[in-house]
Amino acid sequence: MRPSLRLANELRRVRITRHYTKHAEGSVLIEFGDTKVICTASVEERVPPHKRGSGEGWVTAEYGMLPRSTGERMQREAAKGKQSGRTQEIQRLIGRSLRAVVDLQKLGERTIQVDCDVIQADGGTRTASITGAYVALHDAVTKLIRDQKLTESPLKDFIAAISVGIYQGIPVLDLDYVEDSDCDTDMNVVMTGSGGFVEVQGTAEGAPYSRAEMNALLDLAQAGIAQLVEIQGDVLGG
Amino acid sequence: MRPSLRLANELRRVRITRHYTKHAEGSVLIEFGDTKVICTASVEERVPPHKRGSGEGWVTAEYGMLPRSTGERMQREAAKGKQSGRTQEIQRLIGRSLRAVVDLQKLGERTIQVDCDVIQADGGTRTASITGAYVALHDAVTKLIRDQKLTESPLKDFIAAISVGIYQGIPVLDLDYVEDSDCDTDMNVVMTGSGGFVEVQGTAEGAPYSRAEMNALLDLAQAGIAQLVEIQGDVLGG
Amino acid sequence: MRPSLRLANELRRVRITRHYTKHAEGSVLIEFGDTKVICTASVEERVPPHKRGSGEGWVTAEYGMLPRSTGERMQREAAKGKQSGRTQEIQRLIGRSLRAVVDLQKLGERTIQVDCDVIQADGGTRTASITGAYVALHDAVTKLIRDQKLTESPLKDFIAAISVGIYQGIPVLDLDYVEDSDCDTDMNVVMTGSGGFVEVQGTAEGAPYSRAEMNALLDLAQAGIAQLVEIQGDVLGG
Amino acid sequence: MRPSLRLANELRRVRITRHYTKHAEGSVLIEFGDTKVICTASVEERVPPHKRGSGEGWVTAEYGMLPRSTGERMQREAAKGKQSGRTQEIQRLIGRSLRAVVDLQKLGERTIQVDCDVIQADGGTRTASITGAYVALHDAVTKLIRDQKLTESPLKDFIAAISVGIYQGIPVLDLDYVEDSDCDTDMNVVMTGSGGFVEVQGTAEGAPYSRAEMNALLDLAQAGIAQLVEIQGDVLGG
Amino acid sequence: MRPSLRLANELRRVRITRHYTKHAEGSVLIEFGDTKVICTASVEERVPPHKRGSGEGWVTAEYGMLPRSTGERMQREAAKGKQSGRTQEIQRLIGRSLRAVVDLQKLGERTIQVDCDVIQADGGTRTASITGAYVALHDAVTKLIRDQKLTESPLKDFIAAISVGIYQGIPVLDLDYVEDSDCDTDMNVVMTGSGGFVEVQGTAEGAPYSRAEMNALLDLAQAGIAQLVEIQGDVLGG
Amino acid sequence: MRPSLRLANELRRVRITRHYTKHAEGSVLIEFGDTKVICTASVEERVPPHKRGSGEGWVTAEYGMLPRSTGERMQREAAKGKQSGRTQEIQRLIGRSLRAVVDLQKLGERTIQVDCDVIQADGGTRTASITGAYVALHDAVTKLIRDQKLTESPLKDFIAAISVGIYQGIPVLDLDYVEDSDCDTDMNVVMTGSGGFVEVQGTAEGAPYSRAEMNALLDLAQAGIAQLVEIQGDVLGG
Repeated sequence: MRPSLRLANELRRVRITRHYTKHAEGSVLIEFGDTKVICTASVEERVPPHKRGSGEGWVTAEYGMLPRSTGERMQREAAKGKQSGRTQEIQRLIGRSLRAVVDLQKLGERTIQVDCDVIQADGGTRTASITGAYVALHDAVTKLIRDQKLTESPLKDFIAAISVGIYQGIPVLDLDYVEDSDCDTDMNVVMTGSGGFVEVQGTAEGAPYSRAEMNALLDLAQAGIAQLVEIQGDVLGG
Repeated sequence: MRPSLRLANELRRVRITRHYTKHAEGSVLIEFGDTKVICTASVEERVPPHKRGSGEGWVTAEYGMLPRSTGERMQREAAKGKQSGRTQEIQRLIGRSLRAVVDLQKLGERTIQVDCDVIQADGGTRTASITGAYVALHDAVTKLIRDQKLTESPLKDFIAAISVGIYQGIPVLDLDYVEDSDCDTDMNVVMTGSGGFVEVQGTAEGAPYSRAEMNALLDLAQAGIAQLVEIQGDVLGG
Repeated sequence: MRPSLRLANELRRVRITRHYTKHAEGSVLIEFGDTKVICTASVEERVPPHKRGSGEGWVTAEYGMLPRSTGERMQREAAKGKQSGRTQEIQRLIGRSLRAVVDLQKLGERTIQVDCDVIQADGGTRTASITGAYVALHDAVTKLIRDQKLTESPLKDFIAAISVGIYQGIPVLDLDYVEDSDCDTDMNVVMTGSGGFVEVQGTAEGAPYSRAEMNALLDLAQAGIAQLVEIQGDVLGG
Repeated sequence: MRPSLRLANELRRVRITRHYTKHAEGSVLIEFGDTKVICTASVEERVPPHKRGSGEGWVTAEYGMLPRSTGERMQREAAKGKQSGRTQEIQRLIGRSLRAVVDLQKLGERTIQVDCDVIQADGGTRTASITGAYVALHDAVTKLIRDQKLTESPLKDFIAAISVGIYQGIPVLDLDYVEDSDCDTDMNVVMTGSGGFVEVQGTAEGAPYSRAEMNALLDLAQAGIAQLVEIQGDVLGG
Repeated sequence: MRPSLRLANELRRVRITRHYTKHAEGSVLIEFGDTKVICTASVEERVPPHKRGSGEGWVTAEYGMLPRSTGERMQREAAKGKQSGRTQEIQRLIGRSLRAVVDLQKLGERTIQVDCDVIQADGGTRTASITGAYVALHDAVTKLIRDQKLTESPLKDFIAAISVGIYQGIPVLDLDYVEDSDCDTDMNVVMTGSGGFVEVQGTAEGAPYSRAEMNALLDLAQAGIAQLVEIQGDVLGG
Repeated sequence: MRPSLRLANELRRVRITRHYTKHAEGSVLIEFGDTKVICTASVEERVPPHKRGSGEGWVTAEYGMLPRSTGERMQREAAKGKQSGRTQEIQRLIGRSLRAVVDLQKLGERTIQVDCDVIQADGGTRTASITGAYVALHDAVTKLIRDQKLTESPLKDFIAAISVGIYQGIPVLDLDYVEDSDCDTDMNVVMTGSGGFVEVQGTAEGAPYSRAEMNALLDLAQAGIAQLVEIQGDVLGG
C-alpha cells in the first residue's frame, strides 16, 4: 500500500487554474496534489541569436523553486549566484518537451518564454511544470491568434508528463515526495496527446531494474498521461 | 482624481491569507490590490557568524520577483547570476524593519529567515512585503512557543509599511503601479504599531519636494499604517 | 556632549580640493573631518541602452572603499567578485541625487560617470560623496562648455547631503564614526541649493523615533546643507 | 545505410588503454571510434559533508571537453566562469551511473573522484565516459586493495553505456556525430553487467517515437552494452 | 647530481607529435619528459573588438590543466567558476610569446586561438606549451596558405621556451617537478630562432641571486632553446 | 631624447609620504612622478590555511586601480565581478617580492596584508607599489615591535623595484606612460638592498632584444634600485 493510499495506477488530484496572474499572455496554476507550480508564458517579439533570420521562432523555459517551497528551506539561487545542475536539467527538459509540439516555422520569429515557479513542492514538480506549461503556452498562442499576429496555431499536439516508479517492488504512478524518497526507481515520461514518446528519463536510485519492470512502468505512464491530456483538453475547452 | 479612483487617503483593498503554503513555519499571501506577495518565515536553529555565541538570534529577509510578475518579463535573477541593486536594497530594508520589533535576546540563538516572493506586481511590493512578513514572522514565533522552544514572544510591537507620494501635486496614499510611474515623489514609510518611525525612504523622482509636502506625506503614512496594523491584528486574532 | 566635542548643530571641518588627480574631467578630494573621498567625473560620449536615441544623456555613479580605509580591513570587493548590497545602495543613491539637478536633455547624448572612492572612512562617506561629486560634476560640465560641446550648463541647482541622528537623546548633525556607532537613529538627507528635498533615508537602528524627533532632525539637516552649499559655491567660485 | 557504413547493430571500434597518465590511481583512455576520452579516478581520504560520519564513501564525477575537441572551437568553460547545463547534466549522469555499482559502505569514508575529459569528440562522449570511467574506477579500487586500505572490492557489478537512435526510420546502435546530428531520436542507456537498467534517457529531437520503436531501441542497447562489458572484462583481466 | 640524473645542460627527451587530434587546424602533442601538453591552433575568421577594422589579425592563447594531470588532484577551474591567477599569467605569456613572431598585418583580420591543455604535468608546462604551440600555429598557417586564404606566411621566426634554475647552487636546464620544487631560483626564458629574447621571467623562491648567476642561467637557456628550435624545424620539415 | 626630457639613467622624482591614512598599521603614499599609489599594510592575527600550525606567518598583497586613475576610465573590477589577469599578475608579483625579504618564522603566525591602490597612473605602477609597500610593511613591523608582539624585526633586507626599457634603441630607466607606450622592450626588476635579484620580468613588445641589450638594461636597473633603497632608508630614518 502506498503512503498516499492511492491505487498503483492512480493520479493525485490534478487542478489547473488558468489566468492565475494578470500580466502574462498565459498564466496557469497547476496542482498535482500538494505540488503547486505557477506556469506563465510570455511572448517576446525577438528570437535568440541562433534563430535570427531563420523565419522560425523559439520556445524556451526557466524553472525555479521558492526557497521555502520545500520541507527544509533551500538557498535562493539568485542569492547563491547560480542555478544548480538540477535546475538547469529541469528547465532544459521543459523547453525540449514543449518544442516537440510546436511548429517553430508557424510560430514566426518570436519567442515564447515559459517560466515554471514552484510555490509548494511535494514531488513531481517537473512533470507538473510540463503539464501546466502546455496550457499556459496554449493560452499565449490563442492570444497571438486573437491579436491577429498568427493566423493558425503552431501547436501540433498536446504534451504532458508524469512520473512512475517502483515502490516496494510495485510499479506506481505519480509519486509524491514521500513515495519518491523511498523509491528504488524513478522515471519521468513526457508524451504527446497522440501517444508518442518525447522524453523518457529513468534512473535507478537503488537496485537496477529489469526489462519487465521497464515495460510495466511505461504502461502506467501511458495511461496516466492520457488522463492528463484529457484534463488539459477540458480546461482549455472551458 | 487618481487613476485608481481612490480618495487621496484611501488604501487599496488589503487581504492577508495565513497558512498559504504548508511547509513554512509562517506562510502568508498578502494582497495590496493587484500586488500579491508570498511571505514565508523559516526557523533555523543556527545563527550567522556575527551572532554566534552571543545568546542572541537573528532575523533576515530575502526578496524576489517571479519573472513575469510584471508587465514586461524581467530576467530571472538566478539565471543572471546576481541579484540587482534594487533587490538587495529591498531585502535589507525588510530585514531591518522586522528586526526593529524583535527582541533578539529573547529569540535565542536561532534565525528566522523571511522570504518575500512577488507573484504579481502592481506597485508597493516592498511595503506589502514588510506588512505580510510581519504576520508570517508572528506565526513562526507562535509555533516556537507552541513547540516550547520559547516561553515568551520576542515580538515587541507590530510593524507595517506603506508608500505615499505626490501625484499631480496632491499627496496620496498607497500608490499602485500606474500612479507610481507618474509620480514626482515616492516615499516608503515603515512604522510600528505604537506609532514610531522605523524607516523613511523618500526620493524625488522629478522635482524636489518642500518641507510642507513632506509633512503632508508623513501624515498620510501615519494614518495608513494605523489601518494596516489593525488588519494585521484582526487576521492574527482570527 | 558629543564624543567629537562639537555642538549639536556643528559640521566637521569640510575641505574640498579641486583638480586632485590629473586625468578626470572633474576630480575632487572632499574631506568631512577624517572622512576623505576622491570624487571623479568622467565624460563618455555614449549613453546606456535605455537612453539611446532619446536625445538625453545620463549621469551615474559608482562607489568603493579602499580595503583599509576603515579601522578593520574590509575584503576587497573586486577580489570577492561582487559588490555588497550596501555598496550598490550607496551608488544608486549618489546617482539619483546628482540626476535630480541635471537637465538630461541639455546634457545631450553623453554620460557623466562619477566615481566616489573612499580613501579614509570616519562616518558620513555617502554624504561626503554626494557633496564632493557635485563639485566634480560641475567641473566636468564646465570643461564640456569650454570645449564647446555644450552651450549652456545642464546643472539646475546645487546638491549636497548630510547625516543627522539622535545621539543619547539629542538630535545632532554630521555624525562621525564613533557617534554613528552609538546612535539610535541615523538619517541621511539630500537637498538642493534652493532647499528642496531629494532624498530622505532614515533608519531607526535602536528605538523607533517620534514625529517630533523627525522634525528636529530635518531642521538640523536643512541648516547643515545650507552651509555645505555655501562651501561648494565658494570653492567653485575660486 | 548509415554514414559510417556500419550495420544497424554494430558498435564502433572500442579501445581502452589503461595507465594512460601516471599520477591518477586509475587512468584510462577510451576510444569509441574517433571519440576519445581520458578518464581518471582519484582517491581522496575524505567525504563531502552529506556523508561525514556516515561510515559510507562517495563516488562523483566531473566532465569537460577540450575547447577544440569539436569541429568548431567551443568556449572554454573555465574562461566563461561556469559550466553549461549540458556539462552538469552529463557529469551528474556519470556519477549516478558509477554509484549504481558501488557499495558505498564497503568503500569506507573516502571519495573516488572521476574526471572524464574529452580530447576528441565524434558523438557518444557521455557513453564512452561512463564505460571508460568504470575501468578507471576499477583500477583505483584495485590499488586500494593492494595498499591494504580495503579488504574486499566495493564494486558490485560492471557498468557501461551506449547510445541508440532512430536514423532515417531505422533503429541503430552507437551513433557517431554525423548520425547523431541527423537523427530523430536519441537515447542513452546505462546498464549493469548483469543486465539491469540504471539510466535510460531518451529524447525525441524530431518526431515523437512509438512504443514499438522504444522496444527496438532497448533491444539494440542491451546487446551493445553486453559487448562493452565483455571488452571491459578483457581489458581488466589482461 | 640532479635527481633526474641529467647533466646540468641536458634537456629532457622532447617529442612533438603533429596532427594529434583531428578537428583543429593545428594539433600537437608535445612531451618534455613526462610533461605532456596538447596544443591546438584554431582559425576563426573574426578578430576581437580592439582589432576590428585594423586590417590586422590576432593570436591569443588559453591554458588549462586536467584536474588529475598533477600528483594531487586540483580543483577543476570550470567548476570553481574562475581561472586562477597562475592560469591567466601563463596564458597571457603564451599569447605574447607567439605574437612576437607573427606579422599580424600579414595574418589579415582573423584570429588564431591557441589552446594548451596539460594532460600530464611534471614541471615546465608553460615552456612546453609555448614550444608546442608554435608548431600547432605553424600547421594552422600552412593550412591557411594551402586553402589560399594567405599567400605568404605571417610567421617571422621560430619561438621556443625553456626553464632554467639554480639547483643546489648549480645552474641547470629544463627543471622537472622534483627539481623545481627544491630549487631556489626559477627562470623561464622565451627566445626566437634567431636568438632574440622575447620574455625573461625569473623569480627567486629562496635566496636572491647574483648577477653572475643570472648570466650563467641565460647562457644555459640560450643553448637549450637552440636545441628546441632545431627539433621544431625537424618535425615541421618532416 | 626622452619625452620626459630625463637622462637615460634618471629616475622620476620619487616622494614617499608615511602615515598617509590613519587606520592602517603602515600607510604610505608613494609617487614616481605623476604615478601615485597608496600602500597600506594591515596586520591580522591569523594565517591562511596553508600556514596554520606552521609557526610561520604570511605576507600577501592586493592591487587595484581607481577607475579614473587612467587617461580613459577603466571599468571598476568590483562592478565587473572579477579581477583582470593583469591585476592578479601584479598582486602576485608584489606579494612574492615582499616575502623575499621577510623571515616568516620570525614574523610568527600572523598575516601582513598589503594593499596597493593606484590613485593616479602614469607608468610604473607595479614598481612604485613594491617600493612603497616595503615602507608600509616596515612601519607595520615597527608597530608590532613597539606593541611588544615581536622582539626582533623579521625584515632581512630592503626591497625595491624599477622598470627599464629600450626606447628608440636606447636603454632607459623608469619609463613613464608615454615612454612605455612607445617602447619596444619593457623589463621590471626587483632587487634587494644588498643587490640580489628577486624578480626579473622582461617582455619584448616589439622586436626581440639581444643579450647585449639585456646586460645594459640590468645595469641601469641595478643603479636605479640602489637610489630607491637610499630614499627608502632616508624616509624610514626620518
